[in-house]
Amino acid sequence: MSEHSCETASLQRFKAVVEYDGTAYHGWQLQSNVPTIQGELERVLAAILQTPTRVHGAGRTDAGVHATGQVAHFDARWRHPADALQRACNALLPPDIAVRSIATVSDRFHARHSARAKTYVYRILNQPIPSPLKRFYCWHITDTLDVTVMAQAAEFLAGSHDFAAFGSPTDGTPSTAREILDARWEAHDSTLQFTIRGTGFLRYMVRSLVGTLVMVGRGKMSPEEFREVLASRKRSLAGPTAPAVGLCLVQVEYEEE
Amino acid sequence: MSEHSCETASLQRFKAVVEYDGTAYHGWQLQSNVPTIQGELERVLAAILQTPTRVHGAGRTDAGVHATGQVAHFDARWRHPADALQRACNALLPPDIAVRSIATVSDRFHARHSARAKTYVYRILNQPIPSPLKRFYCWHITDTLDVTVMAQAAEFLAGSHDFAAFGSPTDGTPSTAREILDARWEAHDSTLQFTIRGTGFLRYMVRSLVGTLVMVGRGKMSPEEFREVLASRKRSLAGPTAPAVGLCLVQVEYEEE
Repeated sequence: MSEHSCETASLQRFKAVVEYDGTAYHGWQLQSNVPTIQGELERVLAAILQTPTRVHGAGRTDAGVHATGQVAHFDARWRHPADALQRACNALLPPDIAVRSIATVSDRFHARHSARAKTYVYRILNQPIPSPLKRFYCWHITDTLDVTVMAQAAEFLAGSHDFAAFGSPTDGTPSTAREILDARWEAHDSTLQFTIRGTGFLRYMVRSLVGTLVMVGRGKMSPEEFREVLASRKRSLAGPTAPAVGLCLVQVEYEEE
Repeated sequence: MSEHSCETASLQRFKAVVEYDGTAYHGWQLQSNVPTIQGELERVLAAILQTPTRVHGAGRTDAGVHATGQVAHFDARWRHPADALQRACNALLPPDIAVRSIATVSDRFHARHSARAKTYVYRILNQPIPSPLKRFYCWHITDTLDVTVMAQAAEFLAGSHDFAAFGSPTDGTPSTAREILDARWEAHDSTLQFTIRGTGFLRYMVRSLVGTLVMVGRGKMSPEEFREVLASRKRSLAGPTAPAVGLCLVQVEYEEE
């Protein structure tokens, strides 16, 4: 910062889009004594801004989960263009975290509360042999999955449902009702990709849905039985939670966009 | 191995296709005191076969270079199906190396000498911001490259040329003539991908070609000047060697295939 910054800049809110490889982190949320994405961002912003700076994320990704489009906001006194703040962040951040864009926003903007929709992608590598080059970014499943029935089951997800069978609320409210705008499977060679867009998600919801849809793909549950699990609202009927490694938060949407 | 393996199996030659993330390795070739791909494969085969086993690779990839289709051969006495040897290797190999396939071949097969063509892919991430998720698999270049002129320059590569400007021989013979069957650039969003297929390559040849083609993409050399560098056979006229991180050996072809 300039030596002439004794004229204090006014406090402004900034929106940052963040990409990270979650492999080395204990998730998004700040914790003592372990590396987290929020912790790294706050450390770097404190160094640049010379003051403790709280960073608010759109969603708390779990340990090992990746993001290409996580969104965060923070308030800062910064006299220079937002681009310069982005460059300063990227110069100080470790190579597994990058700020993709940074911009000033209204004080009413809140990364979590203002979010209108989020999109997650979950990738499965479905082949007998492990892939060294994809090992941090896909769940490796060796037995052949039937992606056609997985896609049929996923069609039941669109719309508003009580997703209590697939997760617990993260926001302090007891409701487990969420609205899914789109959910689909696509196969590219041996990679099965699940894309799910919704207005909100419960904790572990995407991974729990994927774990259950994999049971469908293995022929251990029919698409109709999957629909019944959803309707049951019973966590005990859902499949196992899929591993974090395949999950990526790809987009958070806001009204102004 | 079976306890009844006192009946010695006959020595057979095996061909293995190997994928690896080269990030953590000092290249393919065995060296003392540092991890190499050949070293890991020999260590694992020695443990399985209970005898020192030399592994011969199709090409010696440099430190940090990746492969999805490296080919190696070795001789072993193995009484079980080749699939079982593959599974044993993958169970013992570290997660950044995997044997994609293994098969018995004729004693006349040699991973390097029998190779008819090799294909390498080099990836550049061309955007202002670094990408945490691609950091081990792409050369990150922030200034915008003109992929159209890079593609024009690459067209001069097809055919037989003396590539002395772009590398040195690895096989003990003095000739720097090599035949390129195909060389092309493709752009997918911010990723520029160079695919080059040839009957043989000099040491550092692909990375040196990419480093020089990037000079063309930056407007520091015209496609015609690139052609002149090739014709000059002078190493001093070529551009810098592109970093290992973007390079991947994707296929080795043999006559019988």
